Amino acid sequence: MNIKEYALVAKQASIALSTVSGETKNNALKAIARDLARYKNEIFQANFRDLQNAETEGLSAPNLKRLRFDDAKLKETLSGLESLISLDEPVGKQLKVTELDEGLILHQVSCPIGVIGVIFESRPDALVQIATLCLKSGNAALLKGGSEALETNKILAKIIYEASIGEEIPERWMHLLETRQDVQELLSCEDSIDLLIPRGSNEFVKYIMNHTKIPVMGHADGICHCFVDKFANLEMATQIVVDAKTQYVAVCNATETLLVDEKIAKAFLPMIHEAFSEKHVIMYGCELTQKIIAVEPATSDSYITEYLDYEISIKVVKDFHEAIHHINQYGSGHTDAIITHDNNRAEVFMNQVDSANVFLNCSTRFSDGFRYGFGAEVGISTAKIHARGPVGLEGLLIYKYKLYGHGQIVADYSEGRKTFTHRDLSNHA
Amino acid sequence: MNIKEYALVAKQASIALSTVSGETKNNALKAIARDLARYKNEIFQANFRDLQNAETEGLSAPNLKRLRFDDAKLKETLSGLESLISLDEPVGKQLKVTELDEGLILHQVSCPIGVIGVIFESRPDALVQIATLCLKSGNAALLKGGSEALETNKILAKIIYEASIGEEIPERWMHLLETRQDVQELLSCEDSIDLLIPRGSNEFVKYIMNHTKIPVMGHADGICHCFVDKFANLEMATQIVVDAKTQYVAVCNATETLLVDEKIAKAFLPMIHEAFSEKHVIMYGCELTQKIIAVEPATSDSYITEYLDYEISIKVVKDFHEAIHHINQYGSGHTDAIITHDNNRAEVFMNQVDSANVFLNCSTRFSDGFRYGFGAEVGISTAKIHARGPVGLEGLLIYKYKLYGHGQIVADYSEGRKTFTHRDLSNHA
Repeated sequence: MNIKEYALVAKQASIALSTVSGETKNNALKAIARDLARYKNEIFQANFRDLQNAETEGLSAPNLKRLRFDDAKLKETLSGLESLISLDEPVGKQLKVTELDEGLILHQVSCPIGVIGVIFESRPDALVQIATLCLKSGNAALLKGGSEALETNKILAKIIYEASIGEEIPERWMHLLETRQDVQELLSCEDSIDLLIPRGSNEFVKYIMNHTKIPVMGHADGICHCFVDKFANLEMATQIVVDAKTQYVAVCNATETLLVDEKIAKAFLPMIHEAFSEKHVIMYGCELTQKIIAVEPATSDSYITEYLDYEISIKVVKDFHEAIHHINQYGSGHTDAIITHDNNRAEVFMNQVDSANVFLNCSTRFSDGFRYGFGAEVGISTAKIHARGPVGLEGLLIYKYKLYGHGQIVADYSEGRKTFTHRDLSNHA
Repeated sequence: MNIKEYALVAKQASIALSTVSGETKNNALKAIARDLARYKNEIFQANFRDLQNAETEGLSAPNLKRLRFDDAKLKETLSGLESLISLDEPVGKQLKVTELDEGLILHQVSCPIGVIGVIFESRPDALVQIATLCLKSGNAALLKGGSEALETNKILAKIIYEASIGEEIPERWMHLLETRQDVQELLSCEDSIDLLIPRGSNEFVKYIMNHTKIPVMGHADGICHCFVDKFANLEMATQIVVDAKTQYVAVCNATETLLVDEKIAKAFLPMIHEAFSEKHVIMYGCELTQKIIAVEPATSDSYITEYLDYEISIKVVKDFHEAIHHINQYGSGHTDAIITHDNNRAEVFMNQVDSANVFLNCSTRFSDGFRYGFGAEVGISTAKIHARGPVGLEGLLIYKYKLYGHGQIVADYSEGRKTFTHRDLSNHA
């Protein structure tokens, strides 16, 4: 079968999967956990082959680390599965019930989206996470992992698929793609695939967004800001900004630009300069910044650069309005924080900054599904529709309307023989 | 200014508009209603010019009717505005409140999407409806109406814009596009426009969907089905099917294909044949249908044809499984009904038919925002993400996360000095 055919059978499987009970899906998830533990040596051996190849091909140390699937990763994976099993069944929830008229009752009911295509980077544990999120939410899944993890992904996919089929999950609900050519074909399956979730570098996500008609959920850039207002506690600001920049630099919610109100620039910049210098953060500053502390000069590109490293852009702004304007112009709509003890200004900032996550007096690093308490994370979205910010299981769901009648026809209402009642029954359901 | 520039200033206006209070927005809506009534003669004169041009150019009678903006249409429009004003303020709703830790509180808050591009057909009352829906939901709007309604649209847009600005709605929040070239430019404004809503013919909506990177909300086809199960009350089935086909044929939720279980085909087909003949409905039947009643032969294209007229395709199916399969293969995911008194079969049908609206024992014509009691209708969507089925005001909204802290940093949690509490405060907010 080619990818179009795999997508078509996945579409058919998704119909059957959409009606599978929560109990059956949880049994399948338990069987997956059992078999991942049972076959762990086979998984580690496959991963060892991937690691050997990757080393031969000169993969960088951080990428080798991401590629590793060992006892610690397995433990993490199994604990994620446990948490997923414990979540409420997401399909078939009555979101709203309305009586349109006597004996004509409308139910808005949650249901799976259908077929999800997920293209992710080197971490093989991501495959388990994504596949099981799709299963729990009743979606069929076409998955493509990084080529350097192919051996590990193949055995993980085989274990997941076979364990799930053994628990009466519909056949063909999941398929692992193996080549880049497969991805190209995937992008043109708009008739069968309902949503694409790419996870990877900026360029990669942008490429996906620009080469498909399928809706895409994800984020390309993560250009996050901290703005230190003139009414900030400067000690607190220093702690937050250092955490936001350096707690983990390689992630999308790390801060890339620091904005400082000019009224406190002379007091604050030396403090942050000292703190950043200790952490070996390279600073690129605007002209005003350069007058106060020793920094590299910022160029016109600095404010649109996602460093993902120990580097930061610094700009002194006239006031919080300029900060808001700068963020809306240069930011990526991901996560932006204000540090201030003026709650009114904070509220204006949080309302006018057009980002998925707007924070007061805390680190941008908090924008994350697990820190938000979602129990499971599908990804982070900077889209303006469907799902925004950290996305939990509900990002893989939509709803349908079920209308239960007893022979009602529209002519009776349009010709005045009957009238609608439109009573909200949601709390009586 | 060109369209890209209009879209950019609309983006800026949308930031300001997103924080305007519900009271101010309602005052603007009241001023719009007042001025539409005040300047009704100018509107009617402009509409008269459009009607004259349209008649000269030989527009069809139904299209001339849609183009007309008279006292009756004004009254309808004003009553729609009144209902919109009475709706709860949709922006700033607390959707969920979670304590992540003591003094670190996460709010999920509804907010406007941003800039909406709406491209609609000849009805000028649609302009008022769409513009005011965008205003109520805090979205900036770029609007393009049918060229045959240009004079009417221009004066309506002027009245709406000036009345709203007079009530302190941010300038440039709305702009009327006037040419087809403008639409072409609009489609490439993916940096400023967040959502496109096309309303019009199949071909038109498909064209839009295929020529833009902006997310599109709408529906191309409306190929709706009625399936008469072997356990149907045939009198009820006849009434429902006749209503679904003929109550108003030119609309997307009118039924285009009738599916009949073979066990009751001999009893039911003569009944529906008689009823349809009275209404002058042309029937196209499959081979089995042709053996029972006098119909035109259905061709391979019949089941993918949206007649929007007094015509219907009829197919006899082996059982309800074949009906479900046929609908998922040939339908457009809009609205499909089963007529049966077997509730178990009904539930399987409603779960497995992958459509936005699935009905039991009532007419497909009920799938409509006003009949569903939404108070306002943005349109109908057959998409699988964001909004599905009849879409009310909530289809123009998304949410953002606001996190209120007191200096919290992630390092404290990742290094074990603090732990998250993840307490749901939604009901205490």
